[in-house]
Amino acid sequence: MIKLSDLGEFGLIKRFSQQFLQDLPGEITGIGDDCAIIPLNNKEALLYTTDMLIEDRHFVRDKITSYDLGQKSLAVNLSDIAAMGGNPKSAYLSIGIPANIELEWLDEFFRGIKDLCLQTRTYLLGGDTTKSPESLIINIGVIGIAKLSKIKRRSTAHPGDIICITDVVGDSGGGLKILLNNLPLDNDAVYLVGRHNCPKAQIEEGKWFSEREEVNAMIDVSDGIESDIHRLMESSNVGAEIEINTVPISKILRKLSEKYNWNVHEIALSGGEDYCLMLTIPEEYVDGIISKYEIKFKKPLYKIGKITGLTGKLTFIKDGKIIDFNKHGFDHFK
Amino acid sequence: MIKLSDLGEFGLIKRFSQQFLQDLPGEITGIGDDCAIIPLNNKEALLYTTDMLIEDRHFVRDKITSYDLGQKSLAVNLSDIAAMGGNPKSAYLSIGIPANIELEWLDEFFRGIKDLCLQTRTYLLGGDTTKSPESLIINIGVIGIAKLSKIKRRSTAHPGDIICITDVVGDSGGGLKILLNNLPLDNDAVYLVGRHNCPKAQIEEGKWFSEREEVNAMIDVSDGIESDIHRLMESSNVGAEIEINTVPISKILRKLSEKYNWNVHEIALSGGEDYCLMLTIPEEYVDGIISKYEIKFKKPLYKIGKITGLTGKLTFIKDGKIIDFNKHGFDHFK
Repeated sequence: MIKLSDLGEFGLIKRFSQQFLQDLPGEITGIGDDCAIIPLNNKEALLYTTDMLIEDRHFVRDKITSYDLGQKSLAVNLSDIAAMGGNPKSAYLSIGIPANIELEWLDEFFRGIKDLCLQTRTYLLGGDTTKSPESLIINIGVIGIAKLSKIKRRSTAHPGDIICITDVVGDSGGGLKILLNNLPLDNDAVYLVGRHNCPKAQIEEGKWFSEREEVNAMIDVSDGIESDIHRLMESSNVGAEIEINTVPISKILRKLSEKYNWNVHEIALSGGEDYCLMLTIPEEYVDGIISKYEIKFKKPLYKIGKITGLTGKLTFIKDGKIIDFNKHGFDHFK
Repeated sequence: MIKLSDLGEFGLIKRFSQQFLQDLPGEITGIGDDCAIIPLNNKEALLYTTDMLIEDRHFVRDKITSYDLGQKSLAVNLSDIAAMGGNPKSAYLSIGIPANIELEWLDEFFRGIKDLCLQTRTYLLGGDTTKSPESLIINIGVIGIAKLSKIKRRSTAHPGDIICITDVVGDSGGGLKILLNNLPLDNDAVYLVGRHNCPKAQIEEGKWFSEREEVNAMIDVSDGIESDIHRLMESSNVGAEIEINTVPISKILRKLSEKYNWNVHEIALSGGEDYCLMLTIPEEYVDGIISKYEIKFKKPLYKIGKITGLTGKLTFIKDGKIIDFNKHGFDHFK
C-alpha cells in the first residue's frame, strides 16, 4: 500500500494531475505551470492561479501583522501571474475565520489586500466567508490576462541557456529562521523578517521579460531555487548546473548567517518564499538582456548557472568543483 | 467595540465588500451575486465563483464518502454558475490534507470530481496541494462563461413577480438531521442522506431560464429559501410573501418528519443545501413558462409566493393567515 508520506506533494500532484490532463483540449494548459492558460481568442489568454495558506502551516498568527498577511496572501498569487508575463485582473478570497479572531485584525487584513489591489490594479470581486472550527484559512485565486504569443512557460528551457534570477535569495528564509527561533529583532533581523512577511510580486519585470523573445523559460522562485529549478528541469526535460558562488546573497543575510552560524548557501538555495523570477536565456543573448534590464529597472539581473542536456541532473559547482547539496527544497509532505 | 459574532456572516461581508466595490469599473459585477461577472467583449462574460468547505464545519468525514465529497465540493460551485445561467468551463481545487488521510480516500475524492467534470464538460486546470495541521480543507473555484445579455441576477426581481423553485426543498436538511442524530439508515433515511451528500447543480435548467427574457431574477437555494429570499429581496430592494402550503416537500421528508416529530416546514424553509434554483417571473408569463419548462424537463416548476413592494419585509402565509416564522436561515457566524 502506497502511503501519502511516501508520495510527497509533487508525487501526489503527479498522481492526480494525469487523469485531469488527458482529456484536455490542445489549446489549454492545465496543471503543471505557474498558472493555467485558457486562450480567449487568437490574441489573448486567461491565466489562473490559486494558493491556500493555513495557520500554523504557512504562517503563525503572532509572527505577522494581519496587514502583511493580507498583502502576502495576494502577492504569492500575483507572483505566479508575473512568472508567465501576465497582468493580474481580479482576485477571489475564501476565508475560514476561527472564533478567536477580532474585527480589528480583519480590518487590517482587508486593508492589506485592498492596498495591494490598488497598487496592481487588481479587483477583489468575490469569495467565500465562513467560520473555521480551529485554524485561520486563507485561499486566494487570481485571474490574469496575457498576450497569447508572449506567455513564458517553465517547459521551454533549452540546453545551453543561462539561468538568471531577478533578486538576491535567502532573505526570506533567513527571516523565517529569525521568527521560528525567536531571535532578537535588531535592524538586520527586522529587515529579513520584512522580506519574509512582505514579499513583492515582480509583475512589471515579468511583463518586461514576456516581451523579450530571447527569453526561453520563466518560473517564480517560491519554494527556493533548488526546488524550483527541479520543476523547470522536469517540465523542460533538461538538466542544470548552478554555480553556487554566483547565487546572489544580501550583505545582511551574510552577516546574520555568520553571527548565528547558519549555512548561508543552504538558506539561499532552499530557504524558499523568495518570489523573485528565474529565467533562462540563450548564452548569445544573455548579456544584451542583462544590460537592457539594468537600464530599465535600475537593478541587476544575476546569472547563476546553465541549462544542460543531462535530463533530470542538477549539479552544484563551487570553486570549480562539483559539490553535493543534499538539502532538498521544501516539500509539503516529507 | 463591535464583535465578529455581533456582525454575523452577512454583516461581515457587507463591512468589507463596500471598500472593494467602490472603485469597480461599471461593467464589472463584484461581490453580491452568485458569481462575479467580468465582460470579455460585448457578447460574452466570464463568471467566477468559489466555495470553501472545512471539515467539522461543512462536513464530517465519516458521514460522507470521499467520492460524494468530491462531487459535492464541485457541485456547490456549479450551482452558482447555474444560478446566473452560465456554462461552467474550468475548475481549480485547493486542498489542505491532514496527516490522517489515506491515499485510497484521495483516489475516490478525485474520482468524484473527475466524474462530475466529465458530466459537465468542466476541466480541472489547477489548484494548490498542501498539508493541513488539523482539518481537511477544500476550496474550489469555478470559471464559467455566459452570454452577457442573458445573465440572470438576484437584483432584478420586481413587485408582482411570482416566486418559483425548481425542486422540492428540505430533503437535504432532513438528511443532515439523520446524520447528526445517528438515526437508523432505512431506505427513506438513505434517500435523504443521499440528497444531502450528493446535490446536483441545475446547469441545464439555469441555462434554459437564462434564455427566457420573461424571467426577471434568479438565485440558487444554498442556505434555504428563507435565507436566500432575503438575499434576493435585499439585492432587488423588494419584499416577498411565501405561501407555506405551496412550498413543495417530498413524501419521504413528510414521512420521516412525522416519524421523528420534526417541523417539516422549518426544514423545508431553512434546512439549507437544497441547490435548486429560485426565480421570479411576472404573473402574466408564469404559467406559460411553467408549461414550457414541464415539457422540456419532464418535472414541475413550483410557485411558492410573490414579490412585493414592501422593501425588506418577508411574510409567511399559511391557510390564508400571516404566521410568524422565527427560525433564521443558516448564518455562519451566529
